[in-house]
Amino acid sequence: MKSDGAKISSRTRLLQAAAALMTERGSIEISLSEIAQKSQLNSALVKYYFGSKNGLLLELVTDILGRAIVQMEELAEMDLDPVEKLKLHIKGIITVYFRYPFVNRLIHSMFQTQETAKAVAEAISIPLAATQKRLLDEAMAKGLIREIDPMLFYFIVLGACDHLFFAQPILHHCFGVERIDDDLRRRYADTVLNMVLSGLLIDKDGARASVVIRLGASRPA
Amino acid sequence: MKSDGAKISSRTRLLQAAAALMTERGSIEISLSEIAQKSQLNSALVKYYFGSKNGLLLELVTDILGRAIVQMEELAEMDLDPVEKLKLHIKGIITVYFRYPFVNRLIHSMFQTQETAKAVAEAISIPLAATQKRLLDEAMAKGLIREIDPMLFYFIVLGACDHLFFAQPILHHCFGVERIDDDLRRRYADTVLNMVLSGLLIDKDGARASVVIRLGASRPA
Repeated sequence: MKSDGAKISSRTRLLQAAAALMTERGSIEISLSEIAQKSQLNSALVKYYFGSKNGLLLELVTDILGRAIVQMEELAEMDLDPVEKLKLHIKGIITVYFRYPFVNRLIHSMFQTQETAKAVAEAISIPLAATQKRLLDEAMAKGLIREIDPMLFYFIVLGACDHLFFAQPILHHCFGVERIDDDLRRRYADTVLNMVLSGLLIDKDGARASVVIRLGASRPA
Repeated sequence: MKSDGAKISSRTRLLQAAAALMTERGSIEISLSEIAQKSQLNSALVKYYFGSKNGLLLELVTDILGRAIVQMEELAEMDLDPVEKLKLHIKGIITVYFRYPFVNRLIHSMFQTQETAKAVAEAISIPLAATQKRLLDEAMAKGLIREIDPMLFYFIVLGACDHLFFAQPILHHCFGVERIDDDLRRRYADTVLNMVLSGLLIDKDGARASVVIRLGASRPA
């Protein structure tokens, strides 16, 4: 999906067309002929490059998320406060969902089919879970966070990050919000972070308040 | 879906057959003829009672979740500690997903179609959000939890509660766990609660630890 330079390969044009269609439509239900029309290329090229529409979609998911996975692995290597790394990790997940609103729906749909499920698991979910576990282990080892089962953390945090985007029709039908803009994305990320790290309860001695303020202060400008 | 007494109406038998099929299969893709076969009734009765398969599925969702919504509204009325109410509310959501593993997939699919989206929003999501807001407002007014936007809370908490069940194929493909048993359900609910209420961070002065222990102690035996 690189779009640098004037000459974009047909392969990339097909991937970009599929991504654009799903983003515009708010749905992953797109046809081969629509991809062909949008890219102004022959639909036979989809078969040529990707084997099938499913092959193209798998390539799109691994292309988008593969880069995110690599960035998260690089983050884990960095010489940073482990809690800071966890925060960047969670913000990173939300940013990917925000940029590619179709991506989690696509992943869930791929996990419904045996062949694509295995491929997405190996390319995305397993490395993501491994990196996340590493970040948690590091923070637990330093006594910065309490003990937590990384598997449960995976589902809770991915679910929390995912849901605003996945359940966008609920945002519309129940809260009258028509689109997720950058402000909502930022407030959502901050609230997820605050809740995951500091929780909601207020301590009587005010200790909680200081944690909340510390988090608030580290929000990017 | 009442099954009390020996005589179960055809209407109820059709609803029960659809629920059983989706539970067994781990998928909401069921056909009219399969519902007919499972219930040992004529598929024409689906049209007679519910108008269409979608009508039957909508009835099933509102039947299952309608009762849960009423229970949550009753909970809001109770003379209980507001934080205790929030805990019961969250545990209640997870219990519904555990008992009816198809229900969130069904809801998400209904939100993809204009006509059913409005119906599910009005019957389920809007009243759920309203009750949740009331519980949060009460706890905020008493200074027990910090300020939070109830809309953001809705998506974070529903997403966190939903994801273990919705993303069951990931549980299988990435963590090698074949089914969600009662023990996993309980550990998940406790971990969601702990994270939502107390967060992960450990305070240097040990204040956080006391909160965690308090929560652990209130776990049902």
